[in-house]
Amino acid sequence: MPITVVGSVAFDTVETPFGRHERCLAGAATYFSLAASFFAPVRIIAVVGEDFTAAEEAVFSARKIDTRGIERAPGKTFFWQGSYLENLNEARTLRTDLNVFAGFEPKIPASYADSDFLFLANIDPVLQRRVREATPQAKLVAGDTMNYWIKDHKPALLEVLKGLDILLINDTEARMLAGNSNLVLAARAVMAMGPRMLVVKHGEYGATLFHKAVAGAQESRTFKTPAFPLEQVVDPTGAGDSFAGGFFGYLASQPELTPGAFRRAMFYGSVMGSFTVERFGTDRLQEITRKDIDERFNLFRELTHLD
Amino acid sequence: MPITVVGSVAFDTVETPFGRHERCLAGAATYFSLAASFFAPVRIIAVVGEDFTAAEEAVFSARKIDTRGIERAPGKTFFWQGSYLENLNEARTLRTDLNVFAGFEPKIPASYADSDFLFLANIDPVLQRRVREATPQAKLVAGDTMNYWIKDHKPALLEVLKGLDILLINDTEARMLAGNSNLVLAARAVMAMGPRMLVVKHGEYGATLFHKAVAGAQESRTFKTPAFPLEQVVDPTGAGDSFAGGFFGYLASQPELTPGAFRRAMFYGSVMGSFTVERFGTDRLQEITRKDIDERFNLFRELTHLD
Repeated sequence: MPITVVGSVAFDTVETPFGRHERCLAGAATYFSLAASFFAPVRIIAVVGEDFTAAEEAVFSARKIDTRGIERAPGKTFFWQGSYLENLNEARTLRTDLNVFAGFEPKIPASYADSDFLFLANIDPVLQRRVREATPQAKLVAGDTMNYWIKDHKPALLEVLKGLDILLINDTEARMLAGNSNLVLAARAVMAMGPRMLVVKHGEYGATLFHKAVAGAQESRTFKTPAFPLEQVVDPTGAGDSFAGGFFGYLASQPELTPGAFRRAMFYGSVMGSFTVERFGTDRLQEITRKDIDERFNLFRELTHLD
Repeated sequence: MPITVVGSVAFDTVETPFGRHERCLAGAATYFSLAASFFAPVRIIAVVGEDFTAAEEAVFSARKIDTRGIERAPGKTFFWQGSYLENLNEARTLRTDLNVFAGFEPKIPASYADSDFLFLANIDPVLQRRVREATPQAKLVAGDTMNYWIKDHKPALLEVLKGLDILLINDTEARMLAGNSNLVLAARAVMAMGPRMLVVKHGEYGATLFHKAVAGAQESRTFKTPAFPLEQVVDPTGAGDSFAGGFFGYLASQPELTPGAFRRAMFYGSVMGSFTVERFGTDRLQEITRKDIDERFNLFRELTHLD
C-alpha cells in the first residue's frame, strides 16, 4: 500500500573520521523514502530549490518514488553541515541554512489521496499537523520529532501526537518528552499523549517497540532488537530516518498488521539503518538490492535468535 | 559441573533515587556466586574480616555455595560506598576501604581441585594469574577486569588474558583495552590478546558475544541480546557480576558447550542481571527461585524473537 511522507530534502556536507563529503543528497524525507521504497510505493512531499537538478531527481526516480509532491521554489535547497570528528554517535552542527525550507507550505497532490500510510518526518509540528488533517484517509500514521520541538514547541507537538498511531524517536527525546529517565515509564507517559505505539531508537544499541498497555498483555507486547553489528560506520547521518523507512515501509507491504508484522518491521528498520551508515549520505541506499536486504535480515535473525 | 570463583566479598553502602542501604552484603564474587548457584555448584575463594558473621555466611549456605575458600582474616571486610543519585547508570564512589582485601592471598582448598570451570572476578591481575596457574585442571576459564587495571596494570592484565577462554567486560573497558572505538574492531583486537570469546556488556542496552574469527563463519558467530526491560532499577550494583554468574553458571550446567548453549547463556546472564537490580544489594537474588528465572527467560525470548 502506498506511503506518503512529508519532510526535508536537503544537501548535507558531512565530515567523519572516514572523510568529508560535500553536498550529499540528504534530508529526513530522502532517507525515509529511499529505505521505504524497497517495500512499498512511496510518495514524497517536500520543497527544494533551484540547485536540485535532474541528477538528484534521478535518485528518487531510480527507486520509483513519486516526486510530484516535491515543490520547486526559487532559491536554494535546505543545507546542513555537520561533523562527527569528535563523536561518531552525535553530530556537531556547523551550519544550517533553511533556504527554501523556511517558507515550506506542504502541498499534497490529488494523486496522493489514496495513501493509506502517512509518515510525518521531523519538521515543524504545525506543518505535521496540517498534513495530518489534510489526509484523513490515512489508516496508519507515524511520525518523528526532535529535541528542539520538544523543548520549545511542546503545545504544537502535543497536538500532533494526538493524531499519531506510532511515534519514532530516540532515547534522549523519549526521556525529555516524558520527563522520566526510566525508559519503560517514559514510554508509558509518551503513549498517554496519543500514540498507541512508540519506537525508541537506541542508535548503536538497537531499538525498542512499546505498545499501549492492554490488560494482562502489557509486557509481552514490548519488542526489543539490538543493532546489526558493523565493522565500519562511515557516516551515521540518516540512520534513524532509514530505520523509520524500513520499519514503516515493511508495515505498508503487509496484508495485515499482526504483532509478527511489527516485529519483523523492527528488524527491517534496523537492517535499513545499518546499510545507510556504511557509506556517506544515501550512497549505500542507492546501490543495495532487495536481495541484500533480505540476506542481512536473515543474518540478523541468526545473530539474535536462540535457535 | 562445579565452578570455582575468586573475587571480592564486600559490604556496600549504596544510595540511589530509591533510598539508601547500609552495609549490604556485596562484592563481585558474591553476586557472581549467588547468580551462578541456580545453575551449578559454586565454590568461592575470597577473604573477609571479623565483621563477616553467621548471617552473611547463611546467605551463601542457603544457596549451597561452598565457602571453604573464604578466608577469615583479622580486621574488617572490604567496604565500598557509592551513590547513583546523579546517574543511575554509573556509580560515584564515595569511599573504598580495602581492609583485609589489601593483603588478599587467594588460597585454593584441596576440595576445589576438580572444578572444571574457573571464574576470575575483577581483582588485581597478579592474583588472577596466580589462581589460574594453580588450577591447571580448569577446562573453561573466564574473567572480568576494570578500567583501573587496564589503565595502570596493563602488562599484568595481558598475562591474564593469555590464560582466558572468555573475557567479560563493558563497552568502555573493551574500547579502552583495544584502543578502538568501533566495538567490532575492538572485540577483534581484544581476542587477539588471548581470549577466544569476548562478552561485552552494554548495561541497560544488553550484551554482545564475540567469537574469534573462524574462516567463513566470523559474522554469524556473533550473538547480540538486548536487556530485559524493567520499570524500576532500584540499585544497579552487581548487574554485571550477576550477568557473569548467570552466563557462566548456565554453561557449567550444560553437557556440551554448543553454540546454542552460549546463546542461551547470554540470555540467562541478562535475566540474572535484571533480577539483581530490582532490589538493593543481593536481596533479589536471595529471594528468587529457578522457576522465576525460567519464567523471565521465556518472557525475554518472547520480547526478542520474531516468532
